[in-house]
Amino acid sequence: DGSHGTSLASGKTRVGGYGELHYNNLDTDNGSEKSLDFHRFVLFFGHQFTDRLRFFSELELEHAFSQDTADGSGKGEVELEQAYIEYDLNDRHHVRGGVSLIPVGILNETHEPPTFYGVERNPVEKNIIPATWWAAGVGARGEIAPGWGYDVSLHEGLNNSAYNIRKGRQKSAEADAHDLASTARIKWTGVAGIELAASIQYQQNITQGIDNDASAWLYEAHADIQRGPFGLRALYAMWDIDGSGAKAVGADQQEGFYIEPSYKVTPKFGVFARYNQYDNAAGNNADTGKKQYDVGVNYWLNPDVVLKADYQKQDNESNTGEKDGFNLGIGYQF
Amino acid sequence: DGSHGTSLASGKTRVGGYGELHYNNLDTDNGSEKSLDFHRFVLFFGHQFTDRLRFFSELELEHAFSQDTADGSGKGEVELEQAYIEYDLNDRHHVRGGVSLIPVGILNETHEPPTFYGVERNPVEKNIIPATWWAAGVGARGEIAPGWGYDVSLHEGLNNSAYNIRKGRQKSAEADAHDLASTARIKWTGVAGIELAASIQYQQNITQGIDNDASAWLYEAHADIQRGPFGLRALYAMWDIDGSGAKAVGADQQEGFYIEPSYKVTPKFGVFARYNQYDNAAGNNADTGKKQYDVGVNYWLNPDVVLKADYQKQDNESNTGEKDGFNLGIGYQF
Amino acid sequence: DGSHGTSLASGKTRVGGYGELHYNNLDTDNGSEKSLDFHRFVLFFGHQFTDRLRFFSELELEHAFSQDTADGSGKGEVELEQAYIEYDLNDRHHVRGGVSLIPVGILNETHEPPTFYGVERNPVEKNIIPATWWAAGVGARGEIAPGWGYDVSLHEGLNNSAYNIRKGRQKSAEADAHDLASTARIKWTGVAGIELAASIQYQQNITQGIDNDASAWLYEAHADIQRGPFGLRALYAMWDIDGSGAKAVGADQQEGFYIEPSYKVTPKFGVFARYNQYDNAAGNNADTGKKQYDVGVNYWLNPDVVLKADYQKQDNESNTGEKDGFNLGIGYQF
Repeated sequence: DGSHGTSLASGKTRVGGYGELHYNNLDTDNGSEKSLDFHRFVLFFGHQFTDRLRFFSELELEHAFSQDTADGSGKGEVELEQAYIEYDLNDRHHVRGGVSLIPVGILNETHEPPTFYGVERNPVEKNIIPATWWAAGVGARGEIAPGWGYDVSLHEGLNNSAYNIRKGRQKSAEADAHDLASTARIKWTGVAGIELAASIQYQQNITQGIDNDASAWLYEAHADIQRGPFGLRALYAMWDIDGSGAKAVGADQQEGFYIEPSYKVTPKFGVFARYNQYDNAAGNNADTGKKQYDVGVNYWLNPDVVLKADYQKQDNESNTGEKDGFNLGIGYQF
Repeated sequence: DGSHGTSLASGKTRVGGYGELHYNNLDTDNGSEKSLDFHRFVLFFGHQFTDRLRFFSELELEHAFSQDTADGSGKGEVELEQAYIEYDLNDRHHVRGGVSLIPVGILNETHEPPTFYGVERNPVEKNIIPATWWAAGVGARGEIAPGWGYDVSLHEGLNNSAYNIRKGRQKSAEADAHDLASTARIKWTGVAGIELAASIQYQQNITQGIDNDASAWLYEAHADIQRGPFGLRALYAMWDIDGSGAKAVGADQQEGFYIEPSYKVTPKFGVFARYNQYDNAAGNNADTGKKQYDVGVNYWLNPDVVLKADYQKQDNESNTGEKDGFNLGIGYQF
Repeated sequence: DGSHGTSLASGKTRVGGYGELHYNNLDTDNGSEKSLDFHRFVLFFGHQFTDRLRFFSELELEHAFSQDTADGSGKGEVELEQAYIEYDLNDRHHVRGGVSLIPVGILNETHEPPTFYGVERNPVEKNIIPATWWAAGVGARGEIAPGWGYDVSLHEGLNNSAYNIRKGRQKSAEADAHDLASTARIKWTGVAGIELAASIQYQQNITQGIDNDASAWLYEAHADIQRGPFGLRALYAMWDIDGSGAKAVGADQQEGFYIEPSYKVTPKFGVFARYNQYDNAAGNNADTGKKQYDVGVNYWLNPDVVLKADYQKQDNESNTGEKDGFNLGIGYQF
């Protein structure tokens, strides 16, 4: 009867968002790829029920346009990346239920464009972790001692019969829950500007029973340091997948790392370089390893609005599928 | 030019929402179904133009993730369930135009998770009514005497050549309007905690002319009672579809009822039981009748946030398609 | 961590929207088309970062319901029609980057239902311009002298191998950016109630290289006049497409115009007539020209809420595909 919804003047409901437009100009194996893409348009909706009870959500339209076609050529996707209820047990411990971002890596939980360097996200967190990675479940987070934070959660598992980590994300859409997963993280932020964290995850079966032996462990560790104008991000992640099926295609081990030094010439202008290396079939000797070199700049018009430019060079062991060139981007958050 | 939209501090625009995460753990005919699904993510947007003129809308993402595929396997849907303009003729009579929820049943108009028992909605309102059921059209609502409310509306009809009521919903998406429908309801709320209501609907042709004789009547009545800690919901609904086509498949009569006693042990904790019986092909003697037994609990963390658990047992005359097991849920509204 | 988003009481974030429900009752070549469609449901989200820096966006659900099917029969679409950052160089000049509406025509940038006559938008701006037309890119707008406004932009081009302008819109969804386009407009609003404007656009190649010679020019001019109760809209638009491919199918020239006088009987009630003529294959002598006559009324319940009714008669040179009949509509903006 039209009486639902909070009067927005109440201050209890929050609306926000972020977004990024990308221009890619890349040389490919047989030609070039030039693209203008509003890659991500995201809205946040939150509500504070009481001081201790709140809701938060993140709704995303990827690639700007979603339609139904006969051949599946529609590019856009509508995604619910976060939607959870959180309750404060006390000042230090919080429990939640719903759809959350998995606590792993640097970008997975904090991926607003003004918070990172590079037009596109780094390929290691994209292909190994795989960010953005969200799941339905329950969890807790909090502080175990000053400067020491923890996260634990039980959530939907991956589901891909080819052991493809990224394609295995079920995105909380009628996710097969025969085989669940659990994640734990410990994070140290004891000195201003320094974050050190390590995550571990166990998957009961990343094929949800298609392959009857496909349990998996994910190990990840990273440092994210900002001291004066100097920044450094370094991350390592590795999957160890059990069973003969994954081993047969070399997917039993999938791993990667990157290191990204940066320097803020002024508070508004920063430069970075990044070396990335990863392999989604590291379990055999096939030429599946990939390297990528990036250099670029961020210019913050405002702490929440950023212009980006970078140059990327890919070096694949297979010598195919390499995309070299430059990217431009505009990003914002509010 | 960026000047659109109301400053949210004005108090004239409202934002709200509701949502529910479901975990289903059910035994099926040949195995089991375990699923984690953010079943519904809903946002409300409303605006008050003047004291007498307002807009209200409900936008929903079902199953958390919408994409385009070649085989139609994408699970998510984006739905506009409400979007109407309402004008107050006076304090007692209101007219509206746009997309509205059909005034029938208990859950169809009030389906926020904290307002009902059970993780999943009851199968009678889902398969007979069929909730959530919305349509484009015009209508009026109001009070004819203290405690006596009415609704009348003219709206898009159903459209399914197999006389499947639920699949016949056109959802205001270029809905075929050759054959319209009209609905009337009378509701008595003369004593606090008691609602008694009856709806009647006429459909000109639920196949939109595929079958040239398929007019239909829907009859529905219910009681929704909350007296102290005791609650009782009971509902009966019946379709009477004309023509030889519907009769040939037994779909000329489709009916069902449920009864749901409940008890609030504390203001935050309630228990319920529900008996459901329905048949979408009651017009012949085939074994198409279905029964479902539910028992469960609701725990309200807050009036607007609820945790749910229930056990369901299905008993189909055909002895196939039965799903027995338990469900867990988290729901909220704001 | 739930801390994103602006408290809506801050006044820096804006939410708005518009929408329109259409009822079409038309005679077609072999029968009739009667339809109820919530054609457009649009939400605006904006944010003011500083006095000089802002974000604005327009998110649309077309046809009320988006789902994935195997045969592409899903009607709805989710579209990001605007999403840009704008920065004020000074009071008179503004630059922007992101997804914007192309500055051409009357309706393309201002298409909220209360701002125009007619249930459906005029066919000339739909099929020639083609409104609503948005693109990713960068641009500037401002004032060159009192009453004289300008727009210039560089943006994604069209992409359709059959020289179909409307289907060529890439909608900022991984748009092929091998061949870009640029648009310029000059607008005079030196007398209250009068707008005169002309746009010109150059497309490098509207097939993005499928046809290696398909550059194109778009020319458009219009007047939009409201003097007391009298209104007049007139618009002419013409495409000149280079190359033998377009010429072979007559698509090398595509043009149209309309003229729409109107009269406000009262501030709330207006009447209009419109003559439309256009041809998407004007480059040859085939019978592809189309004419449409419209007459109708608008009744504004409020400046932001409108009821519409009109009658349309189509007169195609081919004598096929004509749809004659009446349309009803409800529209709003906030």
